[in-house]
Amino acid sequence: MAMKLYDLAGAKDDHRFSPYCWRVRMALAHKSLEVETLPWRFTEKEAIAFSGQDKVPVLVDGEKSVHDSWDIAEYLDETYPQKPLFDSAQARGQGMLVKQWVETQVNPVIGRIILVDLFGMIHDKDKAYFKESREKRFGMALEALCADRPAQIEALDRALVPLRNTLKIQPYIAGAAPNYADYIVFGSLQWARTSAPVEVLPDEDDPVRAWRDRLLDMYDGLARDAWMPEAA
Amino acid sequence: MAMKLYDLAGAKDDHRFSPYCWRVRMALAHKSLEVETLPWRFTEKEAIAFSGQDKVPVLVDGEKSVHDSWDIAEYLDETYPQKPLFDSAQARGQGMLVKQWVETQVNPVIGRIILVDLFGMIHDKDKAYFKESREKRFGMALEALCADRPAQIEALDRALVPLRNTLKIQPYIAGAAPNYADYIVFGSLQWARTSAPVEVLPDEDDPVRAWRDRLLDMYDGLARDAWMPEAA
Repeated sequence: MAMKLYDLAGAKDDHRFSPYCWRVRMALAHKSLEVETLPWRFTEKEAIAFSGQDKVPVLVDGEKSVHDSWDIAEYLDETYPQKPLFDSAQARGQGMLVKQWVETQVNPVIGRIILVDLFGMIHDKDKAYFKESREKRFGMALEALCADRPAQIEALDRALVPLRNTLKIQPYIAGAAPNYADYIVFGSLQWARTSAPVEVLPDEDDPVRAWRDRLLDMYDGLARDAWMPEAA
Repeated sequence: MAMKLYDLAGAKDDHRFSPYCWRVRMALAHKSLEVETLPWRFTEKEAIAFSGQDKVPVLVDGEKSVHDSWDIAEYLDETYPQKPLFDSAQARGQGMLVKQWVETQVNPVIGRIILVDLFGMIHDKDKAYFKESREKRFGMALEALCADRPAQIEALDRALVPLRNTLKIQPYIAGAAPNYADYIVFGSLQWARTSAPVEVLPDEDDPVRAWRDRLLDMYDGLARDAWMPEAA
């Protein structure tokens, strides 16, 4: 029986934008594991109450449920050891630094570029929660957050320098082929791509963009085929 | 026969401050490999001309010489596979992102804190080279570089957030025990420690400081016993 993944959705059922859920979807595809994704909105707390907490991704595998994208990746490597998401204890350890780097140095910058657009596309019932939680996280009004998009795109360009330099030397963060560290970073760029009709990597010669393209094409174009907003 | 390492030195032979050389010294100790370090100054290009380039670290292992700290780590894992510096291909791949993160997001901040002090301790014959190369790299006069040390120490505190968050979860970057990724980052903090009589991690409760302490104590206190300047 296919696993089930509670996957954050916008007003449209097929608008899937969560960076954390995208990590898990790429991880499942990496291992050639089938999954049925269930659209879930921020305020549908009762639908995932069985997981003992109130955030997605939540993966249901038969009788077992696992939440938190990092814990899901560990669960998948333990339960389905083929094609590891981390091929060693050290790689898994170092993966935590990649996660912390993305979540503290990259995601806040991307958030400032896209959150106003994303706000327009989430379900009406989620809007009050989203506005309040994001304004609290960033310490300012949503509109102020995204006031200077060109400057924020330049800030993202700077934030990605360590990744860019790495990709000048090797095709993936994990070396010759991607692992979960790649999906952690990719999830954030897929979040941007599915949240606002703006190219956050405007330089066509950027090695980060070429790497994103390779990941978009993987697994029969799983991420490339995702619904994304078009410029008005 | 013990290996030899050309190791950057200040005016005093036993003042060893290069972050790249410290990476290699920790890597050699990690593998319990003996090494004789040879003090070398920036302008002693002819002494290492045999390596085909003009920078240290240069490791000489019998007939073989290897330069560049990353290449030395790879050489050591290939030649002396015991206690790997990276225990898998993915860990090595991800190590490159750690290296790029340190060199672009951390080292420039530490440089601004310490370079004026370090300038006072390098060999007289190196001073013209050092001043010119560092002023070119940072785009300003050495004195201007280090004008506001408290602000730079706060900037370092922010730059280290991904590492700090990681070390709240696990004792080393590589997980339960250190690997070369830890030594890459540690080398930069040892560079700070051996270059200026200033505590760049002033918060005694900082998990980064506890991690640094653990690494200072390793290998019979190899790094802790290094010569360091005292406050005047």
